[in-house]
Amino acid sequence: MSGNGPIRKLLPFTDWLFRYRRADLPGDLLAGVIVTIMLIPQSLAYAMLAGLPPEYGLYASIAPLFIYGLLGTSRTLSVGPVAVVSLLTASALTPLAAPGSEQYVQLAILLALMTGVVQLVVGLVRGGFIASLLSHPVVAGFITGSSLLIILSQLKHMLGVTATSGHLPYEAAVNLAQALGGTNIATLLIGIGAVAVLLFFRMPFRKLLEKLGLSKALAQTLARTGPAVLVLAGMALVWLAHADTAWGVAVVGEFPSGLPGFSLPSLDLPILNALLPAALIIVLVGYVESVSVGRSLGARRRQVIDPDQELVALGAANIAAGFTSGMPVTGGFSRSVVNFDAGAQTGLASMITAVLIALVTLFLAPMFASLPQVVLAATVIVAVSGLVNFGEVARLWRYSRLDGALMALTIAAVLGIGVELGVAVGVGASLLLYLWRSSRPHIAIVGRVGESESFRNVLRHKVTTYPGLLLVRVDENLFFANTRFLEDRLLAMVLREPDLKHLVLICSSVSEIDSSALESVEALIRRLRDAGVTLHCAEIKGPVMDRLQKVEFEKHLAPGRVFLSTHDAVVALHKEPRTVETAAA
Amino acid sequence: MSGNGPIRKLLPFTDWLFRYRRADLPGDLLAGVIVTIMLIPQSLAYAMLAGLPPEYGLYASIAPLFIYGLLGTSRTLSVGPVAVVSLLTASALTPLAAPGSEQYVQLAILLALMTGVVQLVVGLVRGGFIASLLSHPVVAGFITGSSLLIILSQLKHMLGVTATSGHLPYEAAVNLAQALGGTNIATLLIGIGAVAVLLFFRMPFRKLLEKLGLSKALAQTLARTGPAVLVLAGMALVWLAHADTAWGVAVVGEFPSGLPGFSLPSLDLPILNALLPAALIIVLVGYVESVSVGRSLGARRRQVIDPDQELVALGAANIAAGFTSGMPVTGGFSRSVVNFDAGAQTGLASMITAVLIALVTLFLAPMFASLPQVVLAATVIVAVSGLVNFGEVARLWRYSRLDGALMALTIAAVLGIGVELGVAVGVGASLLLYLWRSSRPHIAIVGRVGESESFRNVLRHKVTTYPGLLLVRVDENLFFANTRFLEDRLLAMVLREPDLKHLVLICSSVSEIDSSALESVEALIRRLRDAGVTLHCAEIKGPVMDRLQKVEFEKHLAPGRVFLSTHDAVVALHKEPRTVETAAA
Repeated sequence: MSGNGPIRKLLPFTDWLFRYRRADLPGDLLAGVIVTIMLIPQSLAYAMLAGLPPEYGLYASIAPLFIYGLLGTSRTLSVGPVAVVSLLTASALTPLAAPGSEQYVQLAILLALMTGVVQLVVGLVRGGFIASLLSHPVVAGFITGSSLLIILSQLKHMLGVTATSGHLPYEAAVNLAQALGGTNIATLLIGIGAVAVLLFFRMPFRKLLEKLGLSKALAQTLARTGPAVLVLAGMALVWLAHADTAWGVAVVGEFPSGLPGFSLPSLDLPILNALLPAALIIVLVGYVESVSVGRSLGARRRQVIDPDQELVALGAANIAAGFTSGMPVTGGFSRSVVNFDAGAQTGLASMITAVLIALVTLFLAPMFASLPQVVLAATVIVAVSGLVNFGEVARLWRYSRLDGALMALTIAAVLGIGVELGVAVGVGASLLLYLWRSSRPHIAIVGRVGESESFRNVLRHKVTTYPGLLLVRVDENLFFANTRFLEDRLLAMVLREPDLKHLVLICSSVSEIDSSALESVEALIRRLRDAGVTLHCAEIKGPVMDRLQKVEFEKHLAPGRVFLSTHDAVVALHKEPRTVETAAA
Repeated sequence: MSGNGPIRKLLPFTDWLFRYRRADLPGDLLAGVIVTIMLIPQSLAYAMLAGLPPEYGLYASIAPLFIYGLLGTSRTLSVGPVAVVSLLTASALTPLAAPGSEQYVQLAILLALMTGVVQLVVGLVRGGFIASLLSHPVVAGFITGSSLLIILSQLKHMLGVTATSGHLPYEAAVNLAQALGGTNIATLLIGIGAVAVLLFFRMPFRKLLEKLGLSKALAQTLARTGPAVLVLAGMALVWLAHADTAWGVAVVGEFPSGLPGFSLPSLDLPILNALLPAALIIVLVGYVESVSVGRSLGARRRQVIDPDQELVALGAANIAAGFTSGMPVTGGFSRSVVNFDAGAQTGLASMITAVLIALVTLFLAPMFASLPQVVLAATVIVAVSGLVNFGEVARLWRYSRLDGALMALTIAAVLGIGVELGVAVGVGASLLLYLWRSSRPHIAIVGRVGESESFRNVLRHKVTTYPGLLLVRVDENLFFANTRFLEDRLLAMVLREPDLKHLVLICSSVSEIDSSALESVEALIRRLRDAGVTLHCAEIKGPVMDRLQKVEFEKHLAPGRVFLSTHDAVVALHKEPRTVETAAA
């Protein structure tokens, strides 16, 4: 762990690249090949989901993977196009340009660049804590809601009809329903067959392989090649049976082979403004998905993930996408697991995949022209259908009704008003919930236990109280979220006791008073003074008092005083009521 | 306090109206008259600030005051047009319509209605805690920033030039600078004179009156009539010296006398969408201003303010404004203080003001046609100039650098990108700051003190630790904001100790585990298991355990266990390392 300086932290490849062990090569090579096989259909499918021509999915699977392999702290995370980010991309761009158009493509590339810049900046200022904005109920609700939207978006390809997506999710459903009459039966049958094949690969095939004596990991990895096998089968159907011309099955169509050129998205302020909300949500969602996969795989080999550096790496990957005609990317769950299981040891596996995808793009692109779109749609549907999880709402509800309701709200919002606003509603609601939960600090009126110097809650213990003197203990830090509630509670207490002269605020549990709380306490001093009550403080901790002295708090408090202990306060205020009364008048 | 049921809570006038004491009448009457004198120039001036014809300020000072008098829990708060809300109104409407146009007026009325509906709903669901969204640094920054913008907006009237306000604040300054050449000297001189008179009324005049033997309260109240005196003087200047035709001084101009008709704003979805952010910010800002004034006055007479009912009352007042051609209103600081000092005892004072303003609107409106606009501008400038407070940035900075920076950021954002977005930036930044502060829970590795059963922080005490067994105490509730940090810290601890077999999470300070934290702990269990470490828990509090049992937490934890005490955990895990090792493998 020597010399783990900031530069080395920013360049994690320095940990492995220059002392690469030959023993790691077979694992990295095999993983690189297998992920490539898996990534080809995924990148084409997710480009389609994002509303982009297929080649842009491949473009996003070259430079970003190479860069992440160098800069990521996870050695096994597989970066590239993923379903939810593609959906977010489509949702952000559809209102701005026609899907598939040149302008749309330019916007997607710009979105990748913006996402990358934001991630890079947030990572460099070590702002990874923003992931906390997405609480579990919001993430779970978002995943379920967006998976349903993804399935909805693919149904038109399954039916072989054309239907536009519309502004709000329900419009896509309406448009689809209206287009039902034009269903292409051949397409539908191929789609159903494709789904069946994929489901077979998912479960029975794996078990079969295991029964045949293959190791669990190998069986699982082979089972993941289902989509690739299906792609070959689909293309064979077009080559041999001319499914496209004979039966009217829509195919991907020709796209240019060759590597992506260097792209420099043009920066136009109104366009940047329009894309910013989507970019921010992709930053958050992409980051949360990526880090949770990375953490989970890292733990299996006791490798640490640095969440801030992950943002830097994802940011660099997206910037690379932006400069090489790619769409926004992040770390994907299933591919990363395959990468890990296939034995990836270092970022080299990811770089090998990048090179292989580049070769495919250069030499095999013409082949994919014959790929039926319905095969890609089936791949997407099967991939995300496992993510729909309504049971989690019930589970959360059982554990905490508010959290269950929050998840249900997020699903409803995503389905009702769309994926970006839906996440925003979920995040807003969870922040409000959090604020509400923290806005009620625990406050106890205390009294003296017997003749001792300890003071306890009057509601729980038999204690002595003093007329005209109220001892109140606040059991939380004072900060802007709870300070108004405290003010109201204390004022209400005072109003209930017309003969009250002194109120002592016991701060033994208060380790921080932020400036809003300070302002509130100062207002309280004035308001209590107007009501004829003097506020005192007791048991203020050292560091808190230090800061209070900087703003001459004791001057504001006067004639109230700061007592070291509650006992001192009682002795002083109860012994000499006359003196203090005069001071308070 | 008998029968304080929900209905009576919603109708606070039932506490005083039906048992009105004759003794309260003189105070209410005097206060009603004096506030009217003060409110006339203010309502004209704030209508001008909002970009509305003058009569709309008067309209907003009739029904809303009457309704608030009935429904408010503050007996002395004076509701009506106020400066910041008028600025927010102008800022929201200027991009949508030409100031002063019929469409602009309709939008202002709609904005009042929307504001009212939101306030009413939030109040009815007792959501007053949303005021916590505005921390002190944000409020202070907003007040200083918006006061500067208000002064900027009035300078054109002071100079007697026409200059449009533009989209961003700096454009207004540029437009004004370009218009400087057309300055009307007479207008400028009247403006300077008006400011001087107002400043004289503010301070020396009050002291003079006190020296002449008047009571402090009376002197203060008379001093507040400065703007009204000035209005009369201004009109006299036009009547006697024909300042308008002779010197080119701009006057308010004729406006229809008569009461406002019933208005029913048309509800158009895109327009509602465009106004919503402004409505939400007016809800927040108006509410915070209003409640803090109400609280402060209430305390002086030991009267309780119910913050949620205040939202209901303000909401009803704004809805009343929306139905009677009024602009958005809230409780104003200076008028409320005057109302209080003049002896208002009940909501009747506010209702008397409403009736008097209605009479003025009916019979005296033609008089105001001759009022120089520069007089109103001077009134506004003097009213808000006292609110500019850069010293507070320094004070906050001394107390807490982050809070000082937050206030400076809010000022800069308000001045740079406008008042609504500026507040939004401030609120967003303070939420992020809050999240960041709460995202790092205190975690201590503990060990046994001597042969006792107590366990303390290894960094502070001489304690015994056990190889292969890590005891970690978390000193905070576990919830979505801190749970990821916890996960990372614990994983990092584990990776530092390659021989670790058991990690015990001591939950003695944990009173809540939200569903995000639960999810995170479950992920931690799996990840630690993958790393060959078993997670156990100890000292889980009763209520926390009850909820964990609902989701079969112990099943997830297995082979990890829940121990009653840390001591039990050490005895079990340190005595039988072999047994547990097997279980963990």
